[in-house]
Amino acid sequence: MLIAQQEMLDWRGTGMSVMEMSHRGPEYTSIAEQAEADLRDLMGISDDYAVLFLQGGASSQFSMIPMNLLHGHTHADYLNTGAWSEKAIAEASRYTKVNVVVDAKPSHYRTIPDKAEWQLSDNPAYVHYTPNETIHGLEFAEIPEVGDATLVADMSSTILSRPCDVNRFGLIYAGAQKNIGPAGLCIVIVRKDLMGKTLPGTPVMFDYKIHADNGSMYNTPATYSWYLAGLVFQWLKQQGGLQGMAEINQRKAAKLYAAIDGSDFYANPVDVRYRSWMNIPFTLANSDLDKQFLADAAKEGLLTLKGHRDLGGMRASIYNAMPEAGVDKLIWFMSEFERRFG
Amino acid sequence: MLIAQQEMLDWRGTGMSVMEMSHRGPEYTSIAEQAEADLRDLMGISDDYAVLFLQGGASSQFSMIPMNLLHGHTHADYLNTGAWSEKAIAEASRYTKVNVVVDAKPSHYRTIPDKAEWQLSDNPAYVHYTPNETIHGLEFAEIPEVGDATLVADMSSTILSRPCDVNRFGLIYAGAQKNIGPAGLCIVIVRKDLMGKTLPGTPVMFDYKIHADNGSMYNTPATYSWYLAGLVFQWLKQQGGLQGMAEINQRKAAKLYAAIDGSDFYANPVDVRYRSWMNIPFTLANSDLDKQFLADAAKEGLLTLKGHRDLGGMRASIYNAMPEAGVDKLIWFMSEFERRFG
Repeated sequence: MLIAQQEMLDWRGTGMSVMEMSHRGPEYTSIAEQAEADLRDLMGISDDYAVLFLQGGASSQFSMIPMNLLHGHTHADYLNTGAWSEKAIAEASRYTKVNVVVDAKPSHYRTIPDKAEWQLSDNPAYVHYTPNETIHGLEFAEIPEVGDATLVADMSSTILSRPCDVNRFGLIYAGAQKNIGPAGLCIVIVRKDLMGKTLPGTPVMFDYKIHADNGSMYNTPATYSWYLAGLVFQWLKQQGGLQGMAEINQRKAAKLYAAIDGSDFYANPVDVRYRSWMNIPFTLANSDLDKQFLADAAKEGLLTLKGHRDLGGMRASIYNAMPEAGVDKLIWFMSEFERRFG
Repeated sequence: MLIAQQEMLDWRGTGMSVMEMSHRGPEYTSIAEQAEADLRDLMGISDDYAVLFLQGGASSQFSMIPMNLLHGHTHADYLNTGAWSEKAIAEASRYTKVNVVVDAKPSHYRTIPDKAEWQLSDNPAYVHYTPNETIHGLEFAEIPEVGDATLVADMSSTILSRPCDVNRFGLIYAGAQKNIGPAGLCIVIVRKDLMGKTLPGTPVMFDYKIHADNGSMYNTPATYSWYLAGLVFQWLKQQGGLQGMAEINQRKAAKLYAAIDGSDFYANPVDVRYRSWMNIPFTLANSDLDKQFLADAAKEGLLTLKGHRDLGGMRASIYNAMPEAGVDKLIWFMSEFERRFG
């Protein structure tokens, strides 16, 4: 962010802000291409995949995926493990028959039923899942095994938090505002052979191939968000890449869960096998203290700890941008709060 | 921009960057609501209209408009006055029959045929036009009279450049990157009674009513672009609002056309009745000098003067953000260049 501030009015001596640049000029083109190259490098993305920098968030992908990937199939498979899965399923159901392979809702999204209970269909257009669910803090421990089916993942909240074997996926998408940074940018990594066969009536802006053929510049892209994402990619490379981030993120999550589990005052209800590295919901033994907890935390600069309105309690979202020292401070604060009120 | 830079890492003492704020938190909500209020104030937008801050640019609107406004009609009317009109027509034709009311293409987009020749249809879903065409610099001198029909305008390159009687329109849209500033934001002003009747298969993110019902926060919006747009709205109010901008913009355009018309070395081919205030294409008497002109101009800090690839020559885009002194400098440079090479 300091780099962004320093460069805001004058990008590398050009006298231009990145925001003033023509997206087709050589200055911006170099920024855009470097960002894509750095992302390909970080994630190990081969030339078999297009990397798209789109607008409209993951919510647009909920429609774009069936509109681009149905390819005449009668149905698609979806795993339901939380609120984002539900939204993806609701939108896909407007375009095709959805087979719900596994449903974590009966457990209140606290666990994922065992693989033996999954009902994968024959010949689905694709299999869609959400590796991490941000509201309930429920996360797959590994990539689901789906045989020859095309696997599609909403990685909005986990992309770049650890290494990822892209070759196991047909399509990966991620709204950038959680683990990358700027809102208004959605990254799509899609196997090239899957593009170009859209449903009739698909808007031109919802056609992956149009964007791929135009280097994500069919129209003016979200130039500044793309630039900021590029700065994040460079920062991640300096942190030791995704292996480095995985070590930091695993350590951050492990110590926060240890603090919660080691206390009778705090609790996290999620099956330990499927606990999120990114979003850690927890409750206080006495919910009457919730407001006090939030107010005192804010005084320490610990913000946005309020749990989602559907769930109540607290939620710590510890994405890539949250430094380990921030987690340490939260743990210290929780311990102090428990000492005073526990 | 200075304000944006000063506030980048700490918005008004919150310790948070606007980019870090939750879009549902009170800090960001106040920014978003103020921006809408300032835009309503500047343009005189009544409560009969929803004001939406969307993603996807004008190119997404090319599909959203028919998907939302056809309302069972058999066709829509489009005026063709340039490249952006053509794109809008091509996309709309995928959803309905398009009646081209008037076609400026035979004149190479240098004039608009007289009203007497227009072929408005009976009972169109709406009438779409592009008040200003950026490539050829062709602009309507006034709002077309279309009787009771719903008028729709792509104001990407003219919004906020002068006063506008919003009540004459059913829908106004504008990609923000030309006359407002940040790329990745598209403003839609739509009469409320027109929303809520979409074509089957319309993606949820392409439904105006969903966005209106959620205050443009059905999903995470382009938060930073929305914030920057709000700064621009406040700046415009300080410049005397749209009447003040109209006087400046008219003066800027008039003096640049006077310089072109007063020279045998430069020429602009557009019918004087339909010349753009915003985009002024011009040619040099000897096109062999084009490269020299661009190189010398760049040395004076006069950038992005190269004409569109379809047209060649030069193009001065003098949107709101271009100060009058910038136009004066361009005129001075053109005169010097003519003196040396003319």
